[in-house]
Amino acid sequence: MRKVSLAGIGFIKIKEYWERPLSALFADAALAAMKDAGTDKLDKLYVANMGSAVFQDQLNVGAIMADAISKPHLPAVRVEAGCASGGAAFHEAVREVASGYSDCVMVGGVEKMSDVLPESVTTLMAMAEEQEYTAYTGVTNAGLSAMLHRLYLDSYASPEEVGMMAVKSHDHAVNCGHAQYPFKMSIERAMASPMEADPIHSMECSGIGDGAAAIILTPLKGSGIEVAGSAVATDYCSLCHREDPLVFNAVKTASDKAYKMADIKPSDVDLAEVHDDFTINGVLSLESLQFCEKGKAASIVANGGIERNGVIPTNTFGGLKARGNPLGATGVYQIAEITLQLRGAAGEHQVKDAKIGLAQNMTGLASTCAVNILRRTDR
Amino acid sequence: MRKVSLAGIGFIKIKEYWERPLSALFADAALAAMKDAGTDKLDKLYVANMGSAVFQDQLNVGAIMADAISKPHLPAVRVEAGCASGGAAFHEAVREVASGYSDCVMVGGVEKMSDVLPESVTTLMAMAEEQEYTAYTGVTNAGLSAMLHRLYLDSYASPEEVGMMAVKSHDHAVNCGHAQYPFKMSIERAMASPMEADPIHSMECSGIGDGAAAIILTPLKGSGIEVAGSAVATDYCSLCHREDPLVFNAVKTASDKAYKMADIKPSDVDLAEVHDDFTINGVLSLESLQFCEKGKAASIVANGGIERNGVIPTNTFGGLKARGNPLGATGVYQIAEITLQLRGAAGEHQVKDAKIGLAQNMTGLASTCAVNILRRTDR
Repeated sequence: MRKVSLAGIGFIKIKEYWERPLSALFADAALAAMKDAGTDKLDKLYVANMGSAVFQDQLNVGAIMADAISKPHLPAVRVEAGCASGGAAFHEAVREVASGYSDCVMVGGVEKMSDVLPESVTTLMAMAEEQEYTAYTGVTNAGLSAMLHRLYLDSYASPEEVGMMAVKSHDHAVNCGHAQYPFKMSIERAMASPMEADPIHSMECSGIGDGAAAIILTPLKGSGIEVAGSAVATDYCSLCHREDPLVFNAVKTASDKAYKMADIKPSDVDLAEVHDDFTINGVLSLESLQFCEKGKAASIVANGGIERNGVIPTNTFGGLKARGNPLGATGVYQIAEITLQLRGAAGEHQVKDAKIGLAQNMTGLASTCAVNILRRTDR
Repeated sequence: MRKVSLAGIGFIKIKEYWERPLSALFADAALAAMKDAGTDKLDKLYVANMGSAVFQDQLNVGAIMADAISKPHLPAVRVEAGCASGGAAFHEAVREVASGYSDCVMVGGVEKMSDVLPESVTTLMAMAEEQEYTAYTGVTNAGLSAMLHRLYLDSYASPEEVGMMAVKSHDHAVNCGHAQYPFKMSIERAMASPMEADPIHSMECSGIGDGAAAIILTPLKGSGIEVAGSAVATDYCSLCHREDPLVFNAVKTASDKAYKMADIKPSDVDLAEVHDDFTINGVLSLESLQFCEKGKAASIVANGGIERNGVIPTNTFGGLKARGNPLGATGVYQIAEITLQLRGAAGEHQVKDAKIGLAQNMTGLASTCAVNILRRTDR
């Protein structure tokens, strides 16, 4: 297998783009990534997208995005794994380069959520749950996460400690040019916000936004940013089939594989981007990634452990909560942000001496999870 | 790269399954494939599906199908390329084994179309066209194909000659256990059927059905059925951007690559499964696959050239028209059928001494096309 290098990244600010189509958002990110990589000679395109069939009545987005960037003959395909589409598509793209099949592969994530009413987004997000057992009941992702949140509060932490996951993410988003919500939010404001699904406050939920991010992968030559580990895993889709609903087995399985590939321990990771679509899911992800013991993450978060100089700097540009969560594009944003960190190009978001970064992207309360680990090779 | 072997196949009869969910259809095909391969030790699952977000409000079908076959921790992902999802997912699965990443990979296609009204199927199929330029006009796939059909009739063939594509497919489906329409249809009946989109008669269109098919890939050891070539290509999505709308460039590009990988000429192919969702598309596919010159395919079809003992036996179990076209599963059915032929297990559908078979699966009037070539290695 060849080592794979992050040769270029591109992304747009996450916000509501009322006047622009899906393909234009994608093209902006893709062209920026090609410029960053200094090449437009693509061999293959993987498009990560969750909701376009519902939001835009659009399928076959592989060909459509290839056409949009003036590559009308490129092999192109869409990878969909719900909200984990970005991380899962990146995983496939890594294999395409590592195996020697292709020398220059783009993985681009795109999502346009503002074309529909918010309730349609809620419905779409629930489609990551199995209709036959779970989604048909009408339960939302917030509702399912609320059950985990309640269980966690019963044993391990206060509402404020869990809520600090959102507060810290907002702290990190300040002055982030591509973040949807680049401002501070206090724990008092979070706790005073209306309940989305008790005990989850609305200010503990990621929002609705449009975004696109793209990455170009090539074989590693000399030094650079390499993909050190990459894995996807699944779990029982229904929470009621899981032995312990507070352990995300897919996160654990995928991270175990990725750590092994990278030949590192969780404590070797210098920064992480975790899937904090709801505060509780960010907290549980930190635990299932094995950065700390079960039940400890909320208190670590509340005590500054995920800050830039903390034990595990996390969501350094704001995470899903404050940078934004354009579903299928989110996992690609995570990896682009880690690339900025490892390049030492993260500006005031910079984690000092960052050498190893981990991106964790999941869907359906971790019924699918992708974990990708990047490493700066010695310069 | 390792050579990749077709180790197992499984599929269900295509029909309307009112009483069974999507996951049950998938599981039936998947379990049959595992039984056929003599193993249930899967390393990875690729799920091909086009419409479940619209038909069943279901996304994240990678994890959901892994769970359905009692593999709740398997790496699993969905590949979507419209009606070409099956062929494109197979292409990704081949790479996964060839590269050495995985030793036993399942690619399973599933589609359940009878859960919705026929007009919803028409709407979904149009989603393979770009909304911004084409689909928003309200034109259907049949309508777009009708433009090509008209153009072809103007220069190259009679309506009856093109219509014979459907007649021959029906001939081939007789006594096929998994075909949706296993009966003969006369050219008179086809030509007397109502216009779906002038000049396409309704009996020249593939129908609506539910189906699932699965294939297990492993490294080739000794003799067997190998994947000799596999490629995906795209083209301008809008017909008006193409130099000659009667040439499917994506079909030509993908087949050129696949022929080169297999080190064969088109004339070396012993049988083909082509994407005859409408008769004209089957005819044009035969030409773009370079089995004959431009403008000649309809007359070859009408003169028996695609029969079992013809120059290029095609759609030997009935093709999309008569075997059935369960969208995301169709490309997987094609490959399973070729496997039966190369095993010499096709019964009364058997093409004598079949050694090399080609499957062509496309979407959006060939804005995406997958071509996969299988070869029986010497026994």
